[in-house]
Amino acid sequence: MSGRLIGVGTGPGDPELLTLKAVRALGEADVVAHFAKAGHCGNARATAAGFLRPGVIELPLLYPVTTEVAKHEPAYGAAIDGFFAEAAASVEGHLAAGCNVAVLSEGDPLFYGSFMHLHVRLAPRWPVEVIPGVTAMSGGWSQAGLPLAQGDDVLTVLPGTLPEAELARRLADSPASVIMKVGRNLPAIRRALAAAGKLARAVYVERATMAETLTLPLADKADDRAPYFSLVLVPGWEARP
Amino acid sequence: MSGRLIGVGTGPGDPELLTLKAVRALGEADVVAHFAKAGHCGNARATAAGFLRPGVIELPLLYPVTTEVAKHEPAYGAAIDGFFAEAAASVEGHLAAGCNVAVLSEGDPLFYGSFMHLHVRLAPRWPVEVIPGVTAMSGGWSQAGLPLAQGDDVLTVLPGTLPEAELARRLADSPASVIMKVGRNLPAIRRALAAAGKLARAVYVERATMAETLTLPLADKADDRAPYFSLVLVPGWEARP
Repeated sequence: MSGRLIGVGTGPGDPELLTLKAVRALGEADVVAHFAKAGHCGNARATAAGFLRPGVIELPLLYPVTTEVAKHEPAYGAAIDGFFAEAAASVEGHLAAGCNVAVLSEGDPLFYGSFMHLHVRLAPRWPVEVIPGVTAMSGGWSQAGLPLAQGDDVLTVLPGTLPEAELARRLADSPASVIMKVGRNLPAIRRALAAAGKLARAVYVERATMAETLTLPLADKADDRAPYFSLVLVPGWEARP
Repeated sequence: MSGRLIGVGTGPGDPELLTLKAVRALGEADVVAHFAKAGHCGNARATAAGFLRPGVIELPLLYPVTTEVAKHEPAYGAAIDGFFAEAAASVEGHLAAGCNVAVLSEGDPLFYGSFMHLHVRLAPRWPVEVIPGVTAMSGGWSQAGLPLAQGDDVLTVLPGTLPEAELARRLADSPASVIMKVGRNLPAIRRALAAAGKLARAVYVERATMAETLTLPLADKADDRAPYFSLVLVPGWEARP
């Protein structure tokens, strides 16, 4: 009897935004895995803390420290590939032993999540279930009370890691946008929004739905410090009734 | 003491995909409103049925029948505007009486949802809370086991109601796409995907996470009949590990 891999979306951060299905899966799992930086607990693990079965086997999957290697260098890709291959192998060990393994995933597992790297490696050989979650962007615009897209509006999701000129071009071409992975890219994101004529309506959301959250017009936010998991929202739908 | 308006995301259709927060809000609400066509129960109402308090006041907000008026005609806009103004007024009556009103919203309330029309009318005058939900697109790609966007991938959300040439242009320009509001637009969507060179990888999902759901390659789906709430997914992220 083989185990099952379950990607569990834990939502944007508020533990009450887990779904009933996620809570049930966590209560039934033999093993609960989560991605994190060494020395950190990981947001998904913190969000799900109250729902783990006492005594459940925990499997932390710790990202390698790659700060000394630039992202475009082949050595970076090799380190990351090797890490995901090892992570998949350690999950697979539990599956082979007949254990169900729940992998905690911030937001939604298949929406820019690390779970995808396990999914593509293990889904060809093992039964897999994916439990969708509330995304950080939904948490952000709900908290901000910001209607984002309606009717025939196009909505574009843009990683803030894109080149500045491409960001500006796509922002100008889309009625509504969400920029993810803000962090140290904030100054370039701000310039791209200005170039697209959309800086004035952009809203900055930090740690959506978490205790220490922050929402303010991007124009009022300094460039000094932004967490990687902050967002910029550009509504396409103004307060037209 | 004034009432509070609460937009409650009910997720894509599986009742287990409601969040704990949505379930709590429904258990506490004085009035539960939902949008529906006359003679129909509405998907959100069906999804949330098991979580309504016995004896709760229900407020159905029934869309006007507009089939005899074309969408681009001013009379269509006027009928829809009048309907949302009336819907807001009837919700406001309960708020003024001190009742909390939960408005059921398929998927996420501020993501292409009818709730937005109440939000923009009532948020300036009444306390509002929005409880985000799992979107239909998350339900769709989770059910299909289809990793959609990762890393620097751009994801574009396209209403299928867009002109065919614009659909084709945006599909060609985006690594990953989701097409919403498929319904009778399916033949035009298929032609746009073909023009963008992406027909072969497109996946059709009907009634994601519901009992009578269907997932298949779009190439295998006939043009004959597609519900409005079906989706087409175009993954940007192939099974690269």
